[in-house]
Amino acid sequence: MAGHRLAKFDIGGTSMGRIITNDGPSNIRPFLEPDSIALVGVPRRTGRASFNILETLLTCGFPGKLYPVNPNADSLLGVKVYPDTDSLPHGIELAVIMVPRDMVLGAVRGCARRGIKAAIIVSEGFAEAGKDGQSLQVEVVEAARATGMRLVGPNSLGSMNNFLPFSSSFLPPPPVKAPVALVSQSGGFLEGFSDFVAGKAIDLGNTCDVDFVDCLEYLETDPDIRLIVLHIEGMKRGRRFLDIARRVSRQKPILALKTGRTGAAARVIASHSGSLAGQDRVYDTAFACAGIMRVKDGDELSDVTRALLHLSPLKGNRIGIVTPTGGCAIMAVDALVQEGLELAQLSTQTVEQLREYFSKWAPPKNPLDMLSAGMSFGYKKVYTACLQGLLDDPEVDAVICIAGWPTVKTIQETAHGKSKPVVTWVQGRWTGEVSARLEDTGYKTAYPTPERAARALSALRQYSSWKNRYK
Amino acid sequence: MAGHRLAKFDIGGTSMGRIITNDGPSNIRPFLEPDSIALVGVPRRTGRASFNILETLLTCGFPGKLYPVNPNADSLLGVKVYPDTDSLPHGIELAVIMVPRDMVLGAVRGCARRGIKAAIIVSEGFAEAGKDGQSLQVEVVEAARATGMRLVGPNSLGSMNNFLPFSSSFLPPPPVKAPVALVSQSGGFLEGFSDFVAGKAIDLGNTCDVDFVDCLEYLETDPDIRLIVLHIEGMKRGRRFLDIARRVSRQKPILALKTGRTGAAARVIASHSGSLAGQDRVYDTAFACAGIMRVKDGDELSDVTRALLHLSPLKGNRIGIVTPTGGCAIMAVDALVQEGLELAQLSTQTVEQLREYFSKWAPPKNPLDMLSAGMSFGYKKVYTACLQGLLDDPEVDAVICIAGWPTVKTIQETAHGKSKPVVTWVQGRWTGEVSARLEDTGYKTAYPTPERAARALSALRQYSSWKNRYK
Repeated sequence: MAGHRLAKFDIGGTSMGRIITNDGPSNIRPFLEPDSIALVGVPRRTGRASFNILETLLTCGFPGKLYPVNPNADSLLGVKVYPDTDSLPHGIELAVIMVPRDMVLGAVRGCARRGIKAAIIVSEGFAEAGKDGQSLQVEVVEAARATGMRLVGPNSLGSMNNFLPFSSSFLPPPPVKAPVALVSQSGGFLEGFSDFVAGKAIDLGNTCDVDFVDCLEYLETDPDIRLIVLHIEGMKRGRRFLDIARRVSRQKPILALKTGRTGAAARVIASHSGSLAGQDRVYDTAFACAGIMRVKDGDELSDVTRALLHLSPLKGNRIGIVTPTGGCAIMAVDALVQEGLELAQLSTQTVEQLREYFSKWAPPKNPLDMLSAGMSFGYKKVYTACLQGLLDDPEVDAVICIAGWPTVKTIQETAHGKSKPVVTWVQGRWTGEVSARLEDTGYKTAYPTPERAARALSALRQYSSWKNRYK
Repeated sequence: MAGHRLAKFDIGGTSMGRIITNDGPSNIRPFLEPDSIALVGVPRRTGRASFNILETLLTCGFPGKLYPVNPNADSLLGVKVYPDTDSLPHGIELAVIMVPRDMVLGAVRGCARRGIKAAIIVSEGFAEAGKDGQSLQVEVVEAARATGMRLVGPNSLGSMNNFLPFSSSFLPPPPVKAPVALVSQSGGFLEGFSDFVAGKAIDLGNTCDVDFVDCLEYLETDPDIRLIVLHIEGMKRGRRFLDIARRVSRQKPILALKTGRTGAAARVIASHSGSLAGQDRVYDTAFACAGIMRVKDGDELSDVTRALLHLSPLKGNRIGIVTPTGGCAIMAVDALVQEGLELAQLSTQTVEQLREYFSKWAPPKNPLDMLSAGMSFGYKKVYTACLQGLLDDPEVDAVICIAGWPTVKTIQETAHGKSKPVVTWVQGRWTGEVSARLEDTGYKTAYPTPERAARALSALRQYSSWKNRYK
């Protein structure tokens, strides 16, 4: 079954009538770590809503050299402007090409003549725009290939590296050095989404040359990156991708957001990145074989990313719960059972240890509902004792804490240095104020609902099992 | 099938061996709008983590009279303390009883002697705590019933009314006069959850007397309340509940969060509110028959509440999309199709009207991907034209806007005064800052993912259809 499905996994690659692959060594460093950039076709307009890439690079503090190209300006924002690509000096690492589509081929050839080996094509109107655009795209790729130049795009916002910092997009790079790379087929995700933000990102756009395989090969050994996120509309070089993903995912978790699940969305994809969406269930199978974890939306992506980055491996399914409210505990139990986890049975030792705090008609059991005990013996004291008990209990693999935000600090202190995963449902209203306060504490595995907390633990369990297979 | 299932809907009522129902007129006003409150068994401790209800009431600014009862204090926080219930004056509307469980019966009788007709029993150890507790609960109810006293609880944090303001819980009432009532079987939800907050709330706890039926009857005509949320663990008087819900839901939307979906959680419910969870699918059927909309978690509850409060009815399934990013539009299309909605086909008039902004190889179609056009003709101008086009198009029933937060103001202005529902996926990273900024604009139907935006529209559609049936 899996084999049969996987046979279809290359479907995206044949979509445009001609597959162009690059089987040479991965050479995409300049897209993420350029020391010098030519900006071919940079607009003269600057300021609010001008989308000027030169301005973004200057504002964000890009430490390398910039070479704007525009025939109608001598200088822009204090930077010397070159009239054409032939005037550029040799030795520039990256070109960002943003001229109208009919001038792209000339610009690529011009950059190649100056020895540039990497170019991002921002311009639109290629494989996503009918037959003419498709032919044009093939011509551009052939021109680049003839000189050994690698291409990202066309129809791309390019790349971003907050560690440098650098961004070829008109969007300023978010000031977060997250150890997370995003490889996307849309520029719309470069700013992050939901709670997620990448430290490095590439928008592959139409994916005419540099593709998911190249990026995985590069990111495999990138010391800044601990987790890789893929936003996939369609897939070329499917088999090679799976081989490499299977290898990389043992070192670094790979999360995939595959869009175009429905027929209506798949039709839109064809006119977006020019890809074929493929059969959605084929992707499920392929991802499972390669250890890629599929997420279905931005909330899940953020939630799971935080769990994988900040928690130790989850060695089993047995979950303990500390809670000041029984009603919320019931929701957490529903959530964890629906995620394939189970409610732990506390060991006798834990029960005995906590018995003194609990009334005789409600002895300690999982979930540990500690409100009455806390009102009698001190809230913080009892909460700490309950969490400590679960962390020490050999029958418990991980803990879901239910707590108002003031208790987060107690949880953080108690869980510190323990190898057992702890997630917190921050109960009560989740406002901007709560987000900000959590950010202050640096506590990363807090979630606004029990479903999201349990889902994050479940993903952690999935990844822990995957890694364990290859130990 | 539905009839067969509904026959089981009263299951929760028989759980404790004895059903006690009240079929008299609904008389629960004092629980939500008390002018005077006796606090029986108020603790002497005050300050941080003391959970002192008197302190909460004084701090929040409750405008009525307070009568603390404690044999070991003469005054507390400047308020005269009564040694026992027999010393209380006549004419007090509500008692909050928080003595140890063995003293509850005496306190109820004492309050009854002073003519108090409504009491919240905060104390624990009743139906949720085995046979002894169950018998005790029956005794308490019989004592109250003999005098015409209504009871909320036991094992309850009581009630809250931010319009007054008033809260019988040790949690201060959130300072939000939301036109939303919450009837809950857990106090854990009184503070709100996810993005949701109630303006009035009752925690029914073990639901020994006042129940969902009483609350629906009261809230039906409460002019402060436009939407009702139920957190249900188990249900007594199921048939009567459905009859009343069917009537009320035509006037005010009713959302239900039914917990205890899994066996493990159902077992925990028995020791929480002493209810039986019942078969989960029975609830699905029952809710559908009564026009109650079931939500599965706190995020969905918040999202749907905001859509129902702030949007006009949704008259059809055809959704238009405005977007600066094709990749995000594809996710929105997936989301709306999976929610049973569909991508609208734009009318010729709309296409013609917008054609001037779009390139010849990518003419306007739904989703309206406006980035290139915006970069050429002005972002705000094009975004406004696209949204305006969709709002005027008779082939479009509602709009999903995809936008960075700075565009929210443009959306708000353009959609203002239109009867067509517009929701916005605020694209990019959703931080505390974004929440705060959105709060400043007063824009209520912004969502952090397209799935949540589409789900909110789908719920709006469901409620619009339900109401329409009875026109």
